[in-house]
Amino acid sequence: MQDGQDMRDRQRAALARRYGGAAVPSAGPWSGVIDGLLAHRTVRGYKPDALPAGTLETLIAAAQSAATSSNLQTWSVVAVTDAAKKTTFAKLAGGQKHIEQCPLFLAFLADLSRLGRLSDAEGRNLEALPYLETFLVAAIDAALAAQNAVVAAESIGLSTVYIGAMRNDPGAVARELTLPQGAVCVFGLCVGYAMPTHVGEVKPRLSQAMVLHREAYQAGDEAAGRRSYDRLLEDFSRRNEMSAYTWTERVMSRVGRVAAINGRDKLKEQLRRLGFPLR
Amino acid sequence: MQDGQDMRDRQRAALARRYGGAAVPSAGPWSGVIDGLLAHRTVRGYKPDALPAGTLETLIAAAQSAATSSNLQTWSVVAVTDAAKKTTFAKLAGGQKHIEQCPLFLAFLADLSRLGRLSDAEGRNLEALPYLETFLVAAIDAALAAQNAVVAAESIGLSTVYIGAMRNDPGAVARELTLPQGAVCVFGLCVGYAMPTHVGEVKPRLSQAMVLHREAYQAGDEAAGRRSYDRLLEDFSRRNEMSAYTWTERVMSRVGRVAAINGRDKLKEQLRRLGFPLR
Repeated sequence: MQDGQDMRDRQRAALARRYGGAAVPSAGPWSGVIDGLLAHRTVRGYKPDALPAGTLETLIAAAQSAATSSNLQTWSVVAVTDAAKKTTFAKLAGGQKHIEQCPLFLAFLADLSRLGRLSDAEGRNLEALPYLETFLVAAIDAALAAQNAVVAAESIGLSTVYIGAMRNDPGAVARELTLPQGAVCVFGLCVGYAMPTHVGEVKPRLSQAMVLHREAYQAGDEAAGRRSYDRLLEDFSRRNEMSAYTWTERVMSRVGRVAAINGRDKLKEQLRRLGFPLR
Repeated sequence: MQDGQDMRDRQRAALARRYGGAAVPSAGPWSGVIDGLLAHRTVRGYKPDALPAGTLETLIAAAQSAATSSNLQTWSVVAVTDAAKKTTFAKLAGGQKHIEQCPLFLAFLADLSRLGRLSDAEGRNLEALPYLETFLVAAIDAALAAQNAVVAAESIGLSTVYIGAMRNDPGAVARELTLPQGAVCVFGLCVGYAMPTHVGEVKPRLSQAMVLHREAYQAGDEAAGRRSYDRLLEDFSRRNEMSAYTWTERVMSRVGRVAAINGRDKLKEQLRRLGFPLR
């Protein structure tokens, strides 16, 4: 925890950036860690520089330090540095060049196969494994772990971008990583040193009024909030992405048509084939 | 990034605690942020002390700073401080007293209802909303956000515990929080000042050899790793929990029988009723 004018100035500036200067929330206690979290930017361009020895192990120790449901630890990670593999993943993800560029690509797995092997070794059936609930536990635990890795990475000067497109064709990803039944890559994470040309502004988010509810859910005046956010994001994209899309337009282009989710409408069948009955 | 002997000592100590002194990985770059991440402990006992003004807003700003798939922001959070509501959730979660004790309980929602309202307002069908993929995006984004809130909370002296048991009866939780169709509480999070009597040691995790794979998945000699971890966790529980369960025993008791998942075998039907067709 920190006090004083300097802290309050940083705090106000960080919040203004995160909410695009609009509807900036008041804030209480603050820390250098929170400064770091609020300054997060997704980066889609990496220098070829290798990571210092031990970086991977540090990131994974941070990831494993996140909470995990009942300590089941139903996630794993495959660290990919091989150029050919990264090229394959870049293609599977619809041509995302940053997967090829980054020195370290982490494939985060929802992994029930380890408990499956324990079950085999002990000769005991684990009745709850085939349920949607248990897959969800694994996916959520993978996400908690990955976010800790992201926070750790940014704290040592690295940048990241999550790759949800690893779910475009989970079967192909599983073959490439020789995953056993009961393991699936739920997302990837590029890790590396940002190309300075690819570090934009902090992207503004929806106002807290739209996301944070008190005691019960109340949608409130969402129309006004959305119009205001549409303008913020239009300006942001004009300054950072040489486009000018509002949030509403982005949402439409992303979830308006099934074709836009790039095969992920088949996720259920793919998961079943990979050993998740999703009962 | 930090250098010097002090940093290397802290680093070694933090890694030794996280892996219970066994198979401690080498580590490279380090930071105070990583010190904090590795020192994480789940806390299940809270002082009644209220949080300073602005704490909630700070935590939510940190949460919103996490990455979100295509910037869709398909999560929301309900902040609960009302005593009666917390008592209800403590009961729904199978009698978890810390939900009543903590001054702030955050119900994290996978929330597609906001996009649903956008769809209604714009008179455009969002074809991809009813898919399992889109629910998964929402659940993962809620997890990334929540983990940022946890990291922020710990950086200002607060403690947390995730409550997966909010999925025991998602319908009842939805009624209590007056959730619209297309929103579901995927987990809760207690936030507050730890009762010192309830802060145990850092819980050791599986060795990196069991969780981290390189270039491709290779299970390796898992039996030996598991036996060694069984002993670590048995000792940990004897010192911290007045029990003596191995990891294998814990896994069995948690996922061995369907009854042990406390109704979550019905999650799929419950999600469908709450407006997630999971196509």
